[in-house]
Amino acid sequence: MLIKAVTTRDARFQLEPGAGSDAVHSSPEYSFAVTYLTLDSGLRGTGLVLTMGEGNDLVCSAIEKLGTQLIGSDIEELMSNFGERFRTLADDPHLRWLGPHKGVVHLALASITNACFDLWAKTRGQPLWNLLLSLSPSEVINLLDLSYLEDVLDRQTALELLVEQQPRRESRTGILERGYPGYDTSVGWYHYDDDQVRENVQRSLDQGFGAFKLKVGGSLQRDLQRAHDLRRIAGRAATIMLDANQQWSLPAAVIACKELASMDPYWIEEPTHPDDIFGHQQLAREIDPLSLALGEHVPNRVVFKNYLEAKCVRFLQPDCTRLGGVSEFLTVSLLARKYGVPVVPHVGDMGQIHQHLVLFNHIAMGHPEAFLEHIPHLNGHFVYPAEVSGGRYRTPQEPGSSSELCE
Amino acid sequence: MLIKAVTTRDARFQLEPGAGSDAVHSSPEYSFAVTYLTLDSGLRGTGLVLTMGEGNDLVCSAIEKLGTQLIGSDIEELMSNFGERFRTLADDPHLRWLGPHKGVVHLALASITNACFDLWAKTRGQPLWNLLLSLSPSEVINLLDLSYLEDVLDRQTALELLVEQQPRRESRTGILERGYPGYDTSVGWYHYDDDQVRENVQRSLDQGFGAFKLKVGGSLQRDLQRAHDLRRIAGRAATIMLDANQQWSLPAAVIACKELASMDPYWIEEPTHPDDIFGHQQLAREIDPLSLALGEHVPNRVVFKNYLEAKCVRFLQPDCTRLGGVSEFLTVSLLARKYGVPVVPHVGDMGQIHQHLVLFNHIAMGHPEAFLEHIPHLNGHFVYPAEVSGGRYRTPQEPGSSSELCE
Repeated sequence: MLIKAVTTRDARFQLEPGAGSDAVHSSPEYSFAVTYLTLDSGLRGTGLVLTMGEGNDLVCSAIEKLGTQLIGSDIEELMSNFGERFRTLADDPHLRWLGPHKGVVHLALASITNACFDLWAKTRGQPLWNLLLSLSPSEVINLLDLSYLEDVLDRQTALELLVEQQPRRESRTGILERGYPGYDTSVGWYHYDDDQVRENVQRSLDQGFGAFKLKVGGSLQRDLQRAHDLRRIAGRAATIMLDANQQWSLPAAVIACKELASMDPYWIEEPTHPDDIFGHQQLAREIDPLSLALGEHVPNRVVFKNYLEAKCVRFLQPDCTRLGGVSEFLTVSLLARKYGVPVVPHVGDMGQIHQHLVLFNHIAMGHPEAFLEHIPHLNGHFVYPAEVSGGRYRTPQEPGSSSELCE
Repeated sequence: MLIKAVTTRDARFQLEPGAGSDAVHSSPEYSFAVTYLTLDSGLRGTGLVLTMGEGNDLVCSAIEKLGTQLIGSDIEELMSNFGERFRTLADDPHLRWLGPHKGVVHLALASITNACFDLWAKTRGQPLWNLLLSLSPSEVINLLDLSYLEDVLDRQTALELLVEQQPRRESRTGILERGYPGYDTSVGWYHYDDDQVRENVQRSLDQGFGAFKLKVGGSLQRDLQRAHDLRRIAGRAATIMLDANQQWSLPAAVIACKELASMDPYWIEEPTHPDDIFGHQQLAREIDPLSLALGEHVPNRVVFKNYLEAKCVRFLQPDCTRLGGVSEFLTVSLLARKYGVPVVPHVGDMGQIHQHLVLFNHIAMGHPEAFLEHIPHLNGHFVYPAEVSGGRYRTPQEPGSSSELCE
């Protein structure tokens, strides 16, 4: 089962007007820089990372540069010690300069990594969640690169975190039948007008959703009006998240969060620059008990370690299409488990891969029951789109990571 | 004076064996992703950013994507409010996703920005240091994007920092005649053997240098032996810096720094991952009074703000070929001034541009007298290579930023 080819696809999808818009990304064209890994048998693994359109080709070029190093590898052998290979790729002596561990080259590594996991699950004939659950704790740890985490999560600590959860795994498998709640991000894009938001929320409620996200970061007056509108329509019991997508300065964030607290948001997401750890720490103190969430633009485990040490984020939103793929997502999930912070992924993959990962996080790591963002705009482009019914994600059964795109 | 063309050059230079090597970058091929901005008059500005070779083309591609937005701009008009244009480019609604403000797209912005400053200085017929010194405080601030710094460095605070230095500028201009010390990084590359290091140091001493850098991050025994060797040859009075280039884990860094303290290093540079702010904070506490230096892999002003707030770095090493060019370098220099931390740039430009910037930092911002890294390997490729004699940088007199490469 040798990898004989690494190829890419620059897949770009036009969205309906307003869809995907936020205060910072005004006119996204959801795009995937796709890695295809083909075995000598012809079986193919697909890896995804998201971009906003322009520049997707840069990630594809970087995939081609990095990915050739996998040609000739046996997939089982590769995955028996993937963490080591991950580190070698992440620390490529030339390409590392372009990060390190961030930006275009790290997105490329993510796409490659995701293709490795997809291919591996397909060769095993299992959905990714099932493959991950079938591994021993040390096999899981072998998938991870724990370098630069030695002070808080060395191999032994990571192993113990998994081993101590083993007796409780069985009691958690009910989630595989029941599914788990999704939350609907597609109701409240930034450039949707008020009528459209109202219609969307009503439709989403009718479909069974009880949790919604609204984009903010415009004038505070507009933000407040829209947030309270949404609360009125969705009701007191609904879970509503507000997302500023980094639009605010720190002083503006303090003011806006305090005002927006009046509509009882579940969290405020990405209030300001994703690199500003002390800024978030100060903000969290000033707006307590309001909760902050972030992670979609946090590029690697080292920055997540810092956010966790700063104790300012109540919901961690790592994304396996921003971090170095499934591998670093699992590393960050373990880190978060150690710090007792729930993982609620951002879904650059539209939930396709993360629907597998949150099952593993809950059952094998003991994270709280899954709760996952839902963005349906690209459903028609996946061979096996995530099934969300009655507002709940249903467990995928096809082999692989559900990443396959229609041709 | 309209910009009529934005073009790029992927310039790669083979180094002598061992040159440029460190514990992490084993076989660098020093490369510049070059931006050329050409005016309708034919006058051309050159912008540089450094890479290690492979991937340099990705930065060139990103320059082409971003740079086209400058076509048709009048250079004087552009520079009268460059900070705003910088922000627009940095927050391109699609390309921003690939950062934000880091990695390939930010390197591209740096190259473009550096070309703008070079072109501007050429149209004014002045060396860049002189042009910068000729600006009023508010003209300087107009060059900067202070977004996400509002909590510590808003426009008013930045202006005051410059205004309060004005009466003291005259007393500092002696540096323009005297020059200022360089330190020689080229004596102690990681893959140079002991004999070669000894020879290099002796030659460098003979040339008048009194400050040297040694690459560490190998076995602790090797590091200690080489560091003490260097101290013996260079003498007690010499300034010696040790540079681990991110090679150590945090626990390893603590041990190594404590041991290496025995040879009295001036600073320890990049001990561990450049994203690990709390890691550096803990390390700084544990090895006090030993000093840490870092910055060459810190991508933007927001991360620098966090390092300054963490009070763990005694020498800040921003690089205008890693940050968003001259503009963000000046922003970070102002930030550092506010926190009272000296700026000793890393020279991804081989010192060509920074020799201008440290003069401005000293005279106009009141930073301590300049001290600048010297790496001579690419001297032959510059039209006006930095002049370093008797171990001191001499003030460049040609119009522009000294970035022009031989064809």
